[in-house]
Amino acid sequence: MRQSKIFSKTTKTMPADIKLASHKFLYKAGFIRESAAGRYYFLPIGIRVREKIAKIVEEEMNRAGAIKIITPVLHPLDLWKETNRTQSVGFELMIVKDRNNSEFALGGTAEEMMVDLVRKFSLSYRDLPFNIYQFSQKFRDEMRARGGLLRVREFMMKDAYSFHADEDDFKKEYQNMWEAYKNIFNRLGLATVVVEADNGYIGGEYCHEFVVESDAGESRFLISADGAYAAHEDVAQFEKKCMNLEEKLTDLKEVDAQRGNTMEDGVDFHQLPLWQQIKDVLFVNEKGEFILAIIRGDFDVNKTKLKNLTKSVDLRHATDEEIRGLGSEPGFISPVGIDKKVIVVADDSLRTIKNAYGGANKKNKDLLNINIDRDYQPNLEGDIAMAQDGFLSEGGSRLQESKGIEVGNIFQLGYHYSSKMNAKFTDADGKEKFYYMGCYGIGIDRTLATIAEKYHDDKGIIWPESVAPFKIHLIGIGNQESGAWDKAEELYKILEQAGMEVLFDDRRDITAGEKFADADLIGCPYRLVVSEKTLAKNSVEVKKRNEDKAELVEIGEVIKYITHST
Amino acid sequence: MRQSKIFSKTTKTMPADIKLASHKFLYKAGFIRESAAGRYYFLPIGIRVREKIAKIVEEEMNRAGAIKIITPVLHPLDLWKETNRTQSVGFELMIVKDRNNSEFALGGTAEEMMVDLVRKFSLSYRDLPFNIYQFSQKFRDEMRARGGLLRVREFMMKDAYSFHADEDDFKKEYQNMWEAYKNIFNRLGLATVVVEADNGYIGGEYCHEFVVESDAGESRFLISADGAYAAHEDVAQFEKKCMNLEEKLTDLKEVDAQRGNTMEDGVDFHQLPLWQQIKDVLFVNEKGEFILAIIRGDFDVNKTKLKNLTKSVDLRHATDEEIRGLGSEPGFISPVGIDKKVIVVADDSLRTIKNAYGGANKKNKDLLNINIDRDYQPNLEGDIAMAQDGFLSEGGSRLQESKGIEVGNIFQLGYHYSSKMNAKFTDADGKEKFYYMGCYGIGIDRTLATIAEKYHDDKGIIWPESVAPFKIHLIGIGNQESGAWDKAEELYKILEQAGMEVLFDDRRDITAGEKFADADLIGCPYRLVVSEKTLAKNSVEVKKRNEDKAELVEIGEVIKYITHST
Repeated sequence: MRQSKIFSKTTKTMPADIKLASHKFLYKAGFIRESAAGRYYFLPIGIRVREKIAKIVEEEMNRAGAIKIITPVLHPLDLWKETNRTQSVGFELMIVKDRNNSEFALGGTAEEMMVDLVRKFSLSYRDLPFNIYQFSQKFRDEMRARGGLLRVREFMMKDAYSFHADEDDFKKEYQNMWEAYKNIFNRLGLATVVVEADNGYIGGEYCHEFVVESDAGESRFLISADGAYAAHEDVAQFEKKCMNLEEKLTDLKEVDAQRGNTMEDGVDFHQLPLWQQIKDVLFVNEKGEFILAIIRGDFDVNKTKLKNLTKSVDLRHATDEEIRGLGSEPGFISPVGIDKKVIVVADDSLRTIKNAYGGANKKNKDLLNINIDRDYQPNLEGDIAMAQDGFLSEGGSRLQESKGIEVGNIFQLGYHYSSKMNAKFTDADGKEKFYYMGCYGIGIDRTLATIAEKYHDDKGIIWPESVAPFKIHLIGIGNQESGAWDKAEELYKILEQAGMEVLFDDRRDITAGEKFADADLIGCPYRLVVSEKTLAKNSVEVKKRNEDKAELVEIGEVIKYITHST
Repeated sequence: MRQSKIFSKTTKTMPADIKLASHKFLYKAGFIRESAAGRYYFLPIGIRVREKIAKIVEEEMNRAGAIKIITPVLHPLDLWKETNRTQSVGFELMIVKDRNNSEFALGGTAEEMMVDLVRKFSLSYRDLPFNIYQFSQKFRDEMRARGGLLRVREFMMKDAYSFHADEDDFKKEYQNMWEAYKNIFNRLGLATVVVEADNGYIGGEYCHEFVVESDAGESRFLISADGAYAAHEDVAQFEKKCMNLEEKLTDLKEVDAQRGNTMEDGVDFHQLPLWQQIKDVLFVNEKGEFILAIIRGDFDVNKTKLKNLTKSVDLRHATDEEIRGLGSEPGFISPVGIDKKVIVVADDSLRTIKNAYGGANKKNKDLLNINIDRDYQPNLEGDIAMAQDGFLSEGGSRLQESKGIEVGNIFQLGYHYSSKMNAKFTDADGKEKFYYMGCYGIGIDRTLATIAEKYHDDKGIIWPESVAPFKIHLIGIGNQESGAWDKAEELYKILEQAGMEVLFDDRRDITAGEKFADADLIGCPYRLVVSEKTLAKNSVEVKKRNEDKAELVEIGEVIKYITHST
């Protein structure tokens, strides 16, 4: 492609709100432009990278036996009602009406569409298993878009859905997809950590995220030092050591307490350990119910775990007014004697301590020697604690905190969708049974940004060859009479005829310095320069984007040189 | 691909409302399934055809120098407001709001998006011309979907937009695209007629449709016997012969008239020629204005021409009540003495007659010797007449009526969008000027259906090789012990390794007859059968889908045979 013909040029300036390296270089080099916030154009060089990523994903999906199809963009909302997802997806779902008043969802994922398609066919166990996938534009009505392509409102996703006769068969495909994903990300130059994760609104019982470690990411996860365990913070489990279970229960006692709202106030005032204090956090769910989360003082509540345990869609902190309305007091909330309408949810860490202390539901009054079962009875108990760096995994290995970008995920769905949508096959025994399902997603655009995030220097992107917009950036410099231009033109044709992808900087009104800067910014693997100086030696200067040294290569040898270079 | 692995099977039954051959076979063979009305899934074999068509379009667009990009699916509605298209597109536009109350259009075309993108860059005459295109899902909120993929509410379109310094440069690209389209449709096996057409809501001054002649189409057009002129009925012009201009004007006279609402009633009653009668049709536009279209009695009004002349977005027939409310009478409307608030629009055919007759705006009263200028003064004059089979083109050649499917179109846009959206480049003289534009569309899904419509027999589709889902349909038949199955498996692998696209009917529980029926239905160019009988001769039976005879070809020669067959 001739650079002179690309209207979407490189630029030195950019909007002030661009922070991340990937966003900066994708913008400046002219890979993408924003339309509305979180909705991007892919420009001539950007769409090439996107399509190369998609092609690798497609090849590996095909190799793994999946079959491509495509669904409409608009999903009949009635299908989403069958699975109650119009509720659980909440505000992220965009809905549109047609002139006949039919309602449609702009899909964020396509479970309902795929199940609805499959149930149109009468299938038997002989037709199973199969895995169908598509590449299509997905929509998420995010409150805030950020980070260029990292969190957007519209993006291309590869989403796959597998249908099985039973769980055993599904598990094979889950492993198959796990391996396919490893292959895909390897080919894309991305090292991924596979972490257990929360299902979110997808449903099912378990899932794994493929995460590329990066400070630019939003996925906080914990990984054990021995590498045996990795989990997103929203599901990460850790050992909650027993503290003082050998103690005798002593009598509950109300005492005066001079302190503020922090846990440290309590520690200082009572001169007791933090872990012995009960931390109380009052939430209100989407139905207006009060949920009191209680936990050992040295731990924090993880809101997603709390949501899952309480089957809530949305949780917000209660206001001071609401707390007082329940006859309690901000900073002094307690499960002991709290209004019966409050749902008390205890972290299981409260089984590791005795004679705890905490608020008394009155201003400036605390309770000492609070004991579970005796003094309060939780409505729900479970793990609602946030894992932290340095905690121990249940295998005893130290957990390390890390951050990364989620580029893919695989989900067990089980019977979640097939049972709600009554999608059945005929089994060998002649009985109709629900499909056992899984689903598997890769965000193509976010993956593109992640590659740029991992592969750049201060001058621009350094694309891995597998996804580079062009393999070669060919540059002609020098004055018009030198013959270098003609030679560059000639070389351009030769390279293209050899089937190489070449970006040819044929612009005559641009300085050599600007051309070099553009080449670094755009980041093709090989930079070839034809100038008077190189021509004098019948050569071309070849420089790899990821190396400093440049070499002179005889013109006739260039194709061989690049083909055999690694 | 193994047929046993394709969940979306062929079927013998179909919904009763399926009428067209393309729809019937695409459904029965398992190329497509409907989600909501007018919104289709492309199934495993369907998406292969769709992608082959798209690839041919892409190759020819690239060859013609166009550059691929992609825009977001959701278009900020504010952009459509800049060009007033939220009005003119009317009900066909779907609009969706996000949680921040920003409004977006689900684009039917992308002129605004492309112009908005281009104006983000500071370009000069040196950057011109360029032509950018995309493949993306388009939306039309059609009142009625029909004919499978022929009129849908969601479809994939290739849309291209060219930007030029001036009209001369644009005209070269218009010709360039014209030729590219001819190449594309040739490669797809489609003979097209290029007809002048109406711009509809796209804007601009002229455009051409690429139409495939077919009774299944909705595009009615007229083509001159000498082939020199072809135009859609909405723009087709014809010779309006002068009839009695040699006559003297005689006095206007009101007479009693016993007749009904038809033109023939007037002819019979007055014993005067049809062409001398004035035909009056009263419309109401979207602003509630009355528009009286008048025309020579032997012609009909074309509503699109009338819309364009009156710059109306929508026209409906006036009710009898409305006619009486204007002091006139249904069946007896006349431009003579009609209420001043009525906009009288005269077809230029009224300049070809004198002493016309027609209604008197009173029940059972007619006027004789009506003459334009003397007795009535039209507010607007122009061509609002519908061309008909047998009329003469302006070149004197007889027009023939035909019907077809519009598969592509090319539009002059001129300054329509760039001026409304203030999109400018810097010209050689240092001045900022509006871009001169064109746009160019091909409906991929409709093209697919058109190919099926043109290439089928009573058993199924007969795909041209360029777009066939697979080149070869390989079938194994006979009993399990015969060795035919193993040989078929072996041949499948050999063919795939040779890079051939093969659909392998490896199903063991299906009769030979059913397999042959499926092969005819799906329509791959070559059917290969391996059976005990063919194996006895170390051969394979090869049959082309478009021929009746089958041949035995030695197994070792099959690849050569197919490669060299035409």
